[in-house]
Amino acid sequence: MSVEETIRKMAETAKRAAGEVAVLSSRKKNEALTRIADNLVEKQSQIKDANGKDLDEGRQKGLSDAMIDRLTVDDKGIESMASGLRDVVSLQDPVGEVTGMWLRPNGLQVGRVRIPLGVISMIYEARPNATVDAAGLCLKAGNAIILRGGSEAFHSNSSLAAIIQDALRGTGVPEGAVQVVPLKDRSAVNALLAQEGLIDLVIPRGGEGLIRFVAENSRIPVLKHYKGVCHVYVDKDADLIMAEEISYNAKVQRPGVCNAMETLLVHRDMANAFLPTAARRFDEAGVELRGCPATCRILPAAHSASDEDWSKEYLDLILAVKVVDNMDDAMDHIARYGSAHTEAIVTSDYERSRRFLRRVDASVVLVNASTRFNDGGELGLGAEIGISTSKLHAYGPMGLDELTTTKFIVYGDGQIRT
Amino acid sequence: MSVEETIRKMAETAKRAAGEVAVLSSRKKNEALTRIADNLVEKQSQIKDANGKDLDEGRQKGLSDAMIDRLTVDDKGIESMASGLRDVVSLQDPVGEVTGMWLRPNGLQVGRVRIPLGVISMIYEARPNATVDAAGLCLKAGNAIILRGGSEAFHSNSSLAAIIQDALRGTGVPEGAVQVVPLKDRSAVNALLAQEGLIDLVIPRGGEGLIRFVAENSRIPVLKHYKGVCHVYVDKDADLIMAEEISYNAKVQRPGVCNAMETLLVHRDMANAFLPTAARRFDEAGVELRGCPATCRILPAAHSASDEDWSKEYLDLILAVKVVDNMDDAMDHIARYGSAHTEAIVTSDYERSRRFLRRVDASVVLVNASTRFNDGGELGLGAEIGISTSKLHAYGPMGLDELTTTKFIVYGDGQIRT
Repeated sequence: MSVEETIRKMAETAKRAAGEVAVLSSRKKNEALTRIADNLVEKQSQIKDANGKDLDEGRQKGLSDAMIDRLTVDDKGIESMASGLRDVVSLQDPVGEVTGMWLRPNGLQVGRVRIPLGVISMIYEARPNATVDAAGLCLKAGNAIILRGGSEAFHSNSSLAAIIQDALRGTGVPEGAVQVVPLKDRSAVNALLAQEGLIDLVIPRGGEGLIRFVAENSRIPVLKHYKGVCHVYVDKDADLIMAEEISYNAKVQRPGVCNAMETLLVHRDMANAFLPTAARRFDEAGVELRGCPATCRILPAAHSASDEDWSKEYLDLILAVKVVDNMDDAMDHIARYGSAHTEAIVTSDYERSRRFLRRVDASVVLVNASTRFNDGGELGLGAEIGISTSKLHAYGPMGLDELTTTKFIVYGDGQIRT
Repeated sequence: MSVEETIRKMAETAKRAAGEVAVLSSRKKNEALTRIADNLVEKQSQIKDANGKDLDEGRQKGLSDAMIDRLTVDDKGIESMASGLRDVVSLQDPVGEVTGMWLRPNGLQVGRVRIPLGVISMIYEARPNATVDAAGLCLKAGNAIILRGGSEAFHSNSSLAAIIQDALRGTGVPEGAVQVVPLKDRSAVNALLAQEGLIDLVIPRGGEGLIRFVAENSRIPVLKHYKGVCHVYVDKDADLIMAEEISYNAKVQRPGVCNAMETLLVHRDMANAFLPTAARRFDEAGVELRGCPATCRILPAAHSASDEDWSKEYLDLILAVKVVDNMDDAMDHIARYGSAHTEAIVTSDYERSRRFLRRVDASVVLVNASTRFNDGGELGLGAEIGISTSKLHAYGPMGLDELTTTKFIVYGDGQIRT
């Protein structure tokens, strides 16, 4: 069977399964999720064997240590996948929620009810735990999912898929609800993106190259963010210690993720008081600073930033620093170089806090808190399947609700239109 | 200037305007809408002159009477555009609504606030009133809009645009908020669809050909429905008179629109009692019936339906009729041939009414009411800019809320992530 035929068949299977999963009771879905969690723990040696094959192949291919680290599944990793699923069990099922209902003058009762999206495909790189996380969230929201992981994690993902499908069978859920593409061939991605009419949503997760490829080749709606060029703006009236803690946390706590700060903007009246102390802490953490001319005058050790630095997502211990004249300057800089992902202000001024929240166009805008909070779990969505910087359907972290849509239901007594 | 350059400039202008319109107060937006309404009425002779040019050209090009009728703008049409705008004034402004706010264990206060989408482009055919309707709704929701009407309505749309922009200037709203593409060239559509990054959403309205063209050539998200193949299913326990009234209304009241019924499904136990009487009324209204073999046995005058009839959107006084064994058969037929637009059941059975509402996948599912109610105004959204049968972002009629999205806002007191 050709790649196209294989993918077509998988998409048809998923579509059929989606019809059944859409109307499963929460109890049934939770039973399946719990069974998957139990099976993962029971069969951890099987998972680790498969993962071992990926690691061997990865080392032969010369993957970097960081890549090997992301790829590795150990006992703790398996425990954490299982407990992630148990967390999803405890989340409220979004399906069936009536988000509003009203009566029309002619007596029609009109409501909107939450329903699953249908079939979701996730195309992602490395980390095998994403396979289990995504399957759990999609299933809970009543969707079928087709997973296409990176070829580096091929054996691990196949092993996880077998365990998941076994658990689904055991609880009477159609196994077509969770499928992993059994092909390493990259053309499988193109074939997936061509299944308009069968697949309702594509979620790419990984490097900017993968995401652009998916966005540019898909006719199916795509939810994505290309990158996170996130700013912290330290305002004139900021609390100095708070500004330092937030900037440090936003940059250093986990520099390789999309909600880490990439550029620090500082009000010129604060620059002399704030920058030297902050720079000392950054220096201790091994952060390289790249500053505008005003920054470099205050911090002679800083490198000089080029224009490209302002739009760079370093994902590393590097930080661009710019002194601005006022908040409007900071907001202009953000509008020009930001990625609509996460933007924070540190201020003690009431009026400016309100204006920043209102005017800055980003999926999450924070006052006096670290950019690192742009995360479904941290913001209280319970879990997340990704972060969207597109404005359609979802803007920001996507949890269970964002894996659903609403349809209108109408109760009549014979009403006709006149 | 080339077509591409013109469109690029318009998109940049719209993007700048969108930033300003997004933070306008409701009062300001309502002032502008009221001024537009007043100016339309004041300058109706100017509009009718321009429309006259379109009509002359249309007649020379040999447009059908129906097309000429759709294109004609008379005093009543202008009054109706103006009163439509006044209705939009009275609608609640969606921008700024906090749709939810909660406190996290670490004291972060997290909320979601409704914001405009940004820049919307509508690509549509004929009816010049769509220009005013769409401009009004987009403006009220804080968006900028670029309108690209059909070449048949070129002079009418240009005249309406001039009047609208004049009113915007007069009330201090950036005129870039409402722009009409000043080009008849079809390549302008391609140029619009290439403005990813400047335009946030494209809404095509018109024939299936136009909509497919837009969907297949756009990298910008598109909200659309291709067609409305809507069904009424008359169940075993339906009230006969109600079934007749609803079927008749769904087919005959306005056959040329997307929410008109195209196929009637009848439970076999009802067929003998229901079909002959219903057919008499359809016959009086000039409706041609195309039936399955069982239908033709009961109604010898009916034509024999071919397999293509089940997926046809006639938009005309033609109706496909099929006798089914039971509700599951009816739902299978709808799943196979339906367009996820509007589906209705007529029944007196409680259990089946619930199952139909739950299982049928369509943007609007009705019990004991006409399919003609799938309309933003009729369902209580106040107004509509179109109907979406895609599931992402909006499913069903789209009103003011659907022209917005939400962003997360976070109030902190120095929280960092640990």
